[in-house]
Amino acid sequence: MIDSADVEAAARRLEGIAVRTPLLQNHALDEAAGGTVLIKPECLQVTGSFKIRGAYNFLSQLTSEQARAGVVAFSSGNHAQGVAAAGAMLGIRTAIVMPEDAPRAKLDNTRRLGGEVITYDRYSGDREAIAREVAAKRGAVVVPSYDHEYIIAGQGTVGLEIAEQCAELGLQPDAVLVCCGGGGLVAGSATALAGRFDQVSVHPVEPEGFDDTARSLVSGRPEHISPSARSICDALQAHSPGELTFAINRRLLDRGLVVSDDEVREAMRFAFRNLKLVVEPGGAVALAAVLSGKIETAGKTTVVVLSGGNVDAALYGEIQRAESG
Amino acid sequence: MIDSADVEAAARRLEGIAVRTPLLQNHALDEAAGGTVLIKPECLQVTGSFKIRGAYNFLSQLTSEQARAGVVAFSSGNHAQGVAAAGAMLGIRTAIVMPEDAPRAKLDNTRRLGGEVITYDRYSGDREAIAREVAAKRGAVVVPSYDHEYIIAGQGTVGLEIAEQCAELGLQPDAVLVCCGGGGLVAGSATALAGRFDQVSVHPVEPEGFDDTARSLVSGRPEHISPSARSICDALQAHSPGELTFAINRRLLDRGLVVSDDEVREAMRFAFRNLKLVVEPGGAVALAAVLSGKIETAGKTTVVVLSGGNVDAALYGEIQRAESG
Repeated sequence: MIDSADVEAAARRLEGIAVRTPLLQNHALDEAAGGTVLIKPECLQVTGSFKIRGAYNFLSQLTSEQARAGVVAFSSGNHAQGVAAAGAMLGIRTAIVMPEDAPRAKLDNTRRLGGEVITYDRYSGDREAIAREVAAKRGAVVVPSYDHEYIIAGQGTVGLEIAEQCAELGLQPDAVLVCCGGGGLVAGSATALAGRFDQVSVHPVEPEGFDDTARSLVSGRPEHISPSARSICDALQAHSPGELTFAINRRLLDRGLVVSDDEVREAMRFAFRNLKLVVEPGGAVALAAVLSGKIETAGKTTVVVLSGGNVDAALYGEIQRAESG
Repeated sequence: MIDSADVEAAARRLEGIAVRTPLLQNHALDEAAGGTVLIKPECLQVTGSFKIRGAYNFLSQLTSEQARAGVVAFSSGNHAQGVAAAGAMLGIRTAIVMPEDAPRAKLDNTRRLGGEVITYDRYSGDREAIAREVAAKRGAVVVPSYDHEYIIAGQGTVGLEIAEQCAELGLQPDAVLVCCGGGGLVAGSATALAGRFDQVSVHPVEPEGFDDTARSLVSGRPEHISPSARSICDALQAHSPGELTFAINRRLLDRGLVVSDDEVREAMRFAFRNLKLVVEPGGAVALAAVLSGKIETAGKTTVVVLSGGNVDAALYGEIQRAESG
């Protein structure tokens, strides 16, 4: 089980590699929330999402023998770009198994960063099996998307920076809202935050239909999603909580929040109109939770992580047009 | 004539009022430029553009008698929002004369901030005359868009922050690129930068057809634009350099850079795709100058100001769709 020292070690490895994204505040958002909302815009991160943090923390700890053999990952797109970018920085060959219907921006960027892309069908193929097969053939290491201590510790640097930046502002957050697919970002961030603050509620936020972590926190055991579930949030479609991430999350998280696709779209429009930030569907769930009143924010200090901004122009335009129509 | 001490005084007035926007760096942009590019995203500023800086610096120095009578401004939209927001913060009534074809986002936000909006026809009406008439009737002060020392000093805090943030990063900028309509932002920023660095080239950037400052810098006297000029950059359509701004700019600026509407559109797409920032046409000209090679950036450190992000969803979607098609 990792602790906050592991996150701090990851932060040292990431110096000069990942951007220390700012902690922003916005009048319109504060007004909508009736309190102070601090925005952690990981869409401004290298590769457009937080994923470079965990990927680099993992790849930089491979032995030189492992590094020579290259790595394989499976990802809906953001982890793919993180792994490809970290590989490019460290001179490690990367192959990534991605759904063939992943956003074009994510597929293109992964290739542009030097990653070898292997596509599969999201609803019939088994990406883990494909990745393991490729890895076995090449003697390559598989880079997990979330269920590994190095990945969790790397993503946790988001929470560590939030803690440091709140301290710089002289603010003590009441709640921190973090999107949750497999749960690596929220597990690592909660670990870092628990190391700095006695009292802060960390909430995972999931899209409707993919609320496995919210339900697992209630039942106390790993719940699964329905195979028929669909969501606009391509980045948050994990089937059940990770083993390691859930062990951390059941100990450190407050109740899970769940948002609809329409609430996500409205949050993306709000971010366009008021924050001037491009946020992808999965990256907007925490903001959606605040705007749709899933948690009390009046008179409080709430932190929302905007985890990524890799969205295709066509989908983005469609969502924005819905507003102007 | 203002000097850097005036900008520093403005910065003290703006503490806790304007956001100290971050200075960002982006891998894809550095790669495109072949050097280091630092981004000053004033689209993340209160009201979505830098204009709150000058407006607040002006309004906060009114006498209580002047403040009671309210103020009048004329603006294509960003100054309007800045004046309305500053008025709301200081309890001063504001009326703003705006073109009837100003972006809807700018009209709506100005009203939402409590500003009284008076519309006119951009190509036939005389906004200055309308503003003066309203002001005379009410005994109100007119808040100039750029040609006033308080406005110039306030906008100059952008340049002051760039100087401070470069120093924090241990970087000495070779060139700073700033959009230029009436020239207040670039005049104030150049004043602040000259106070901190011995050698830095500050370039105004203008849209084709509205290159009055570029031509004035060459001829040494105020040049005017053609009445038939049109540009997508609604925020940068000044007819000639301001008297005060040009007196500063002819002394402190390096050559003017000029970009086409297509180069602006491409820069807006680049910002969407890579920076994850929503930038309006007028806010994208400095980035467009870098991306279209209007200045040598290879091996250098270049700062670009993204001055605002107030663009309607319909126009934004149209520009982004052009890419995906």
